[in-house]
Amino acid sequence: MQTLNNQTLLQRSLQAVWHPCTQMKQHESLPLVPIRRGEGVWLYDFDGQRYLDGVSSWWVNLFGHNHPRIKAAITAQLDTLEHVILAGFTHEPVVQLSERLARLTGLGHAFYGSDGASAIEIALKMSFHYWRNQGRPGKTEFLSLQQSYHGETLGALSVTDVAIFKDTYAPLLRHSTHMPSPDARLAEVGESAADYARRCAAAVDAHLAQHHASIAALVVEPLVQCAAGMAMYDPLYLQLVRASCDRYGVHLIADEIAVGFGRTGTLFACEQAAILPDFMTLSKGITGGYLPLSVTLTRDSIYQAFYDDSTARGFLHSHSYTGNALACSAALATLDIFAEQDVLADNAKTATIINARLTRYANLPIRHLRHRGMIWAFDVESATPGFAQRFYLEALKRGLLLRPIGNTVYFMPPYVLNEDEIDFLITQTYQAVLACA
Amino acid sequence: MQTLNNQTLLQRSLQAVWHPCTQMKQHESLPLVPIRRGEGVWLYDFDGQRYLDGVSSWWVNLFGHNHPRIKAAITAQLDTLEHVILAGFTHEPVVQLSERLARLTGLGHAFYGSDGASAIEIALKMSFHYWRNQGRPGKTEFLSLQQSYHGETLGALSVTDVAIFKDTYAPLLRHSTHMPSPDARLAEVGESAADYARRCAAAVDAHLAQHHASIAALVVEPLVQCAAGMAMYDPLYLQLVRASCDRYGVHLIADEIAVGFGRTGTLFACEQAAILPDFMTLSKGITGGYLPLSVTLTRDSIYQAFYDDSTARGFLHSHSYTGNALACSAALATLDIFAEQDVLADNAKTATIINARLTRYANLPIRHLRHRGMIWAFDVESATPGFAQRFYLEALKRGLLLRPIGNTVYFMPPYVLNEDEIDFLITQTYQAVLACA
Repeated sequence: MQTLNNQTLLQRSLQAVWHPCTQMKQHESLPLVPIRRGEGVWLYDFDGQRYLDGVSSWWVNLFGHNHPRIKAAITAQLDTLEHVILAGFTHEPVVQLSERLARLTGLGHAFYGSDGASAIEIALKMSFHYWRNQGRPGKTEFLSLQQSYHGETLGALSVTDVAIFKDTYAPLLRHSTHMPSPDARLAEVGESAADYARRCAAAVDAHLAQHHASIAALVVEPLVQCAAGMAMYDPLYLQLVRASCDRYGVHLIADEIAVGFGRTGTLFACEQAAILPDFMTLSKGITGGYLPLSVTLTRDSIYQAFYDDSTARGFLHSHSYTGNALACSAALATLDIFAEQDVLADNAKTATIINARLTRYANLPIRHLRHRGMIWAFDVESATPGFAQRFYLEALKRGLLLRPIGNTVYFMPPYVLNEDEIDFLITQTYQAVLACA
Repeated sequence: MQTLNNQTLLQRSLQAVWHPCTQMKQHESLPLVPIRRGEGVWLYDFDGQRYLDGVSSWWVNLFGHNHPRIKAAITAQLDTLEHVILAGFTHEPVVQLSERLARLTGLGHAFYGSDGASAIEIALKMSFHYWRNQGRPGKTEFLSLQQSYHGETLGALSVTDVAIFKDTYAPLLRHSTHMPSPDARLAEVGESAADYARRCAAAVDAHLAQHHASIAALVVEPLVQCAAGMAMYDPLYLQLVRASCDRYGVHLIADEIAVGFGRTGTLFACEQAAILPDFMTLSKGITGGYLPLSVTLTRDSIYQAFYDDSTARGFLHSHSYTGNALACSAALATLDIFAEQDVLADNAKTATIINARLTRYANLPIRHLRHRGMIWAFDVESATPGFAQRFYLEALKRGLLLRPIGNTVYFMPPYVLNEDEIDFLITQTYQAVLACA
């Protein structure tokens, strides 16, 4: 059997795999790193190098790699039921998970997919269909925010506003309107984040006042627009748009795919604004980063509008692997960890340590050092073109997986990093900024 | 701890879970069956009843439930790497799987999602983007077939033509054109399946002759339009539309999500027409029915059109769980089973036995008894309204999971059913037809 090393495996990968979110030609100069195993916050390659997973493998991993509890849950589930059709049939893990998500979010009637984008597509279809069932078939439009990311299937991409992902496909997409982003960095000089949030929410209110008859839903990423470069905003914004949606009869879809499961400091980001959305979409961290699973939750009143003698008034959407028992078992183990350890309090302590260490960044050429929960970000001043790639390489060399978005460097680490790992993250990032800025 | 039984678990499921493809109110009379465990072709509920999984849990299960080989592969993978971001990073299972799929299909550059619908969305976006990169941005339309099913996210639903899934959402969908289905049942009296296939392919040719400048791709389910009620058609159709697509510069997308992995008698359905599509989408059976995984494969020439110094000419689509290592390990185990056993030859023997047993159906009031590979279907004559639900219930009572589509009863069993199980399937279905027709 051939001994694998980085070089052979990366060459094979470049031949056989079309990597996501990648112009493949860039890998002529950019190394592709083959990972042999994971352990805690560390990823180990085939040449004995290790990397601190500073992005939680695209924001999915909560409690580290090779987690005994989640592994044990999947292994146990493999001995009973791996999967069964969820139309006409059900099973214990999907029922338990749905009940627990309902208790935790205040929303229920869990509808499952596997890709996060599917959860968004489901929320959009459900919202439109709800209004149709209520005799309001004219509500066919969706409102979203500038800089928003909700996935890249065509429906999800329509409500996304990231040019590099969207512009190419414009002829395939429905028109949609994007309201000003409440990103606190966009506030005027002297304007507080809350004042700016108020101004942005007023724009939504004004738009809804005029167009509510044709709008089914407003979709937002609560508190942090992650793909926009960890754009953070004041919770007041969510309270105000919730009120506007209520005033004008428009659904509020909270896309907590990236921000859910403790990432912003509360179990769900909406809690910080004390609002209940009409729909919530979840994925990523839901299985602790182990298996694809996504879910759309909604209110009883919405569910009831589909509950009818007419088949066509039902929500007939499906995915083959809806409610996959193995993925649900990983999600239950993840919720067990939240229930049995005080994860949010532990994260708050971790955040305090990280924030203290970040004071030494004061002399770096950076702006907008910001933090919410277990997300940190800063923008490198006068970054020259190619900064993101240069920094990525520099960090890799130093044993760090970080993927800047433009000139924004961010940390979204697994929750379990210890003080030594924090020091490593903080120090190596500091050096990498100095080397690249 | 509460002892679970069918009644308690089904009530909890109806409260907490929004089941796919279901008008939930129908469960006031229709039982929802909670499954405790699976073993081979059997699903066991919480009250000691078992059901032969005659639909392979929505066409995903190939080798039965609780399969030792696939379980072992997932368990082993859990000990090394469960998941890592696939942008900039890679791992052994995804590389091996991509290489093996390339060898088996003649197409490569595997791009992964988790839901089948995502694979279709990826193929549509890639096809459009290819033409755009080639200086043909006007190719923005997709052609599909009447009765087709390609998934229910908004892009996939646009090329789907099943009224009950689609009509409600018309205002959200792009217009798309559906060509006549080559479904052999629609042939005129005296017209052979091949002649009818030729007539339908001629319609595609004529349409492309006129509209090719605006059409990026034709998407088809090769050989069997499954959701249309197992509509089977002559392989000649695929040869002819392949030639038309070549003639007019239009991609052919083969959606083998349902028909791939041996279901139609060959490993992939396209083999029976000896054609190579431009894109192939796979999911469902790819993991043996264990875990959600989908993939879009394409030709080198298409991949090369994205390989460029310009980032925007790359395919920047992504899903968080793209190339999930656990799902890839299940897929590798599934391919191992195909490699080490002569699954297709064994299936051919199984099919011979089933076909012999089906001769006794000659006296049933059915039409169009049809078969391809490991799919069988027949249409019940003068079925009265509600037939599908009545038959479903009657079959369940008899220990069989079968889900008729309209008046079409079909079998799509796991490949591993033995002679006793075949007899059970054939006999109980026979009795159920007599009871319901």
